[in-house]
Amino acid sequence: MTAREAMPNAYVAGKGNLSDEDATLVARRDRALGPAYRLFYETPVHLVRGEGVWLYDSAGKAYLDTYNNVASVGHCHPRVVAAMASQAATFASHTRYLHEAILDYSERLLVTFPSALSHMMFTCTGSEANDLALRIAREHTGGTGVIVTENAYHGVTLAVSGFSPSLGPGVPLGAHVRTVPAPDPELGDRAGEVFAAGVQAAIDDLRRHGIRPAVLIVDTVFSSDGVIPDPAGFLAPAVAAIRAAGGLFIADEVQPGFGRTGAGMWGFSRHGIVPDMVSLGKPMGNGYPVAGLVLRPEPVERFGAKGRYFNTFGGNAVAAATASAVLDVIEDEGLIGNAKVTGAYLADGLRALAGRFDAIGSIRAAGLFIGVDIVAADQPDARRTHRIVNALREAGVLISATGRNANTLKIRPPLVFGRDHADIFVDRLDGVLRALA
Amino acid sequence: MTAREAMPNAYVAGKGNLSDEDATLVARRDRALGPAYRLFYETPVHLVRGEGVWLYDSAGKAYLDTYNNVASVGHCHPRVVAAMASQAATFASHTRYLHEAILDYSERLLVTFPSALSHMMFTCTGSEANDLALRIAREHTGGTGVIVTENAYHGVTLAVSGFSPSLGPGVPLGAHVRTVPAPDPELGDRAGEVFAAGVQAAIDDLRRHGIRPAVLIVDTVFSSDGVIPDPAGFLAPAVAAIRAAGGLFIADEVQPGFGRTGAGMWGFSRHGIVPDMVSLGKPMGNGYPVAGLVLRPEPVERFGAKGRYFNTFGGNAVAAATASAVLDVIEDEGLIGNAKVTGAYLADGLRALAGRFDAIGSIRAAGLFIGVDIVAADQPDARRTHRIVNALREAGVLISATGRNANTLKIRPPLVFGRDHADIFVDRLDGVLRALA
Repeated sequence: MTAREAMPNAYVAGKGNLSDEDATLVARRDRALGPAYRLFYETPVHLVRGEGVWLYDSAGKAYLDTYNNVASVGHCHPRVVAAMASQAATFASHTRYLHEAILDYSERLLVTFPSALSHMMFTCTGSEANDLALRIAREHTGGTGVIVTENAYHGVTLAVSGFSPSLGPGVPLGAHVRTVPAPDPELGDRAGEVFAAGVQAAIDDLRRHGIRPAVLIVDTVFSSDGVIPDPAGFLAPAVAAIRAAGGLFIADEVQPGFGRTGAGMWGFSRHGIVPDMVSLGKPMGNGYPVAGLVLRPEPVERFGAKGRYFNTFGGNAVAAATASAVLDVIEDEGLIGNAKVTGAYLADGLRALAGRFDAIGSIRAAGLFIGVDIVAADQPDARRTHRIVNALREAGVLISATGRNANTLKIRPPLVFGRDHADIFVDRLDGVLRALA
Repeated sequence: MTAREAMPNAYVAGKGNLSDEDATLVARRDRALGPAYRLFYETPVHLVRGEGVWLYDSAGKAYLDTYNNVASVGHCHPRVVAAMASQAATFASHTRYLHEAILDYSERLLVTFPSALSHMMFTCTGSEANDLALRIAREHTGGTGVIVTENAYHGVTLAVSGFSPSLGPGVPLGAHVRTVPAPDPELGDRAGEVFAAGVQAAIDDLRRHGIRPAVLIVDTVFSSDGVIPDPAGFLAPAVAAIRAAGGLFIADEVQPGFGRTGAGMWGFSRHGIVPDMVSLGKPMGNGYPVAGLVLRPEPVERFGAKGRYFNTFGGNAVAAATASAVLDVIEDEGLIGNAKVTGAYLADGLRALAGRFDAIGSIRAAGLFIGVDIVAADQPDARRTHRIVNALREAGVLISATGRNANTLKIRPPLVFGRDHADIFVDRLDGVLRALA
């Protein structure tokens, strides 16, 4: 497997059908950005404008965005842009001066969490949030061991890339990192018990190597493992296992958080657990680089007494004002309710398609986060998945693939996605599946 | 030494002279943000507005900002805000689609570097840039050893905080990290040779422990070591030493970069060297969270072939447009020239003060980055430095302290600082020194 193959839907030089203009941009990218950057699609998309659930390329072609979970309240939402611009024109400095914005935001966000989670810390990226969580957990537990799922993605710092196996075999895992199979929804009620047994085996193996467990960290909707929301509650036994071993449980809400699952603000809620720390990112500022960590006070006591945390841009006044506007929009436009209702409607549409196309296997949905397995003779079919993703791109729909076998369509549109958009998506997927059949 | 004492000018609860309103904000901070956050000053400053080199508190009092190097082209610069808002309202997505903004910016910025430095990678923070630099260097060199100066600060990820000794004894250094004495400007022409000898000793010690050296990383103006720009050229022998050992040299330009030293865009230039990688941050977006890494192609070849780098917000279209507006302002307002001229004027004014006050020891200046040692009987005097910093705050001037002995006034105002501002600063410092004498 090459590094490019390790990333589903990566552009491979020399393939595709680029315009002269876009080929020039690709060449400029290679020269200026170097070899570590990847584009999406066989023929990369050259975007110039976004609005709501729509993105537009340089030729004016419209794409229905069913993939980008950062612009969660809609691309270029005017209320969010206005809040950002207004604060940036007034005051934009950092957390070592007193300022209301960060406090107003923190208090407002903390209300959406169980009361045990009473502190909020600010970073600029989800990677930084997970990195900070590990720093705090190491200080609190005295351990260094990290347990993640087999195809987890948690970020790109040295420490966090070391527990993000989905980055592929070219990116080394840390010596103190153990991977466990993701929960298997096919096991139904036994999924939690089997997952916890995997976590316990990892704990035992860490100890066998003289490593004290520090954290179990999971994306609570298991995005890169293929989207695994159900059966609700399956996380609880694993959380109990890591705590019994002296470790902490970190819920990575960078992808499921801020209402995407349609069942409240946070993905962990469906599992009836209270994490020790919760990391936040992508949709928090609708594209503005703001992220953070919500946590119980105990883990950070020692960390805060022995040292300090300062992130120059993290929690600056503009970040707080922008993130606050995102909460306004989520509330005022009823986006959690919409994620639930439209998500269910979209999932129903996909299930109807599944009745007509053998290529569709399992469908797993939680609000507007849906995974659709693509199979051939009931086996994962990464090649067919790739063809569907790229045919949809030609048909004006942006999507990508995920999962350990790269055969899961990853559907996570902006939360302003409506029934009409769901109809368009199902219709175009229908067309693509018919053409490929 | 307590953790709060490890940070110069940290607010200590119960001290100071807070208004009821501000005391309430402090209490809200403690509750919401927890124990790892620090405020500046005996009496924290409650800021609400910024413009140019001025910041205003909630009572309308104006503060001359001689400290904040993030809002480098001036607080809330309207051109930068407008560019950010305009792009955010149009398109704000990431580097896996084709978009001109990131390429236009990268090519424009790369022109300011020696031609060997031909790639640019984007992160959101200087911490992430230095973390990425280490990941790349580890892959390229096969080593893990890191050499930094005794009071270096490079950032806050797990890996980078592990080579940021200025965070204090409560934050563990990495097992593969060695510290060396910062260059000693008192040694004159021998400073480079002595610094290189320290680096060589660290290389030898790493090897003695079976650790292969990966990088020497320094802030090229040694901000947290007390501001050490001269004698120009002193870095060259140490750079040669790390390269001879198979390691890379990383110039951390997060603080000196983007024209602050008044002698061109980058702090490393004065030393007649070409780094293997250069990290960028703070002033790059005038407060917008954008940072990055400029590097020779060779170190990233293997890293890019084996894996990929994607930073969700890093290099997004808004980041590129905002950073580009910052370059516009630097050019159109002649800020590098201003840093040189006004910096020299300010340094002259401070030297004149030094003739009248024994409390002022050595003055080290490079453009608008100036370190002023505060002494008593020629010995470092952290307590007096602290009193000066806080008396200036009362007199309406924001500043802080730095250096291994916390006795260096750190002067690094926005680059739009003019002669009139320099006069105000010298005059108020004069008043403070007279009052304290």
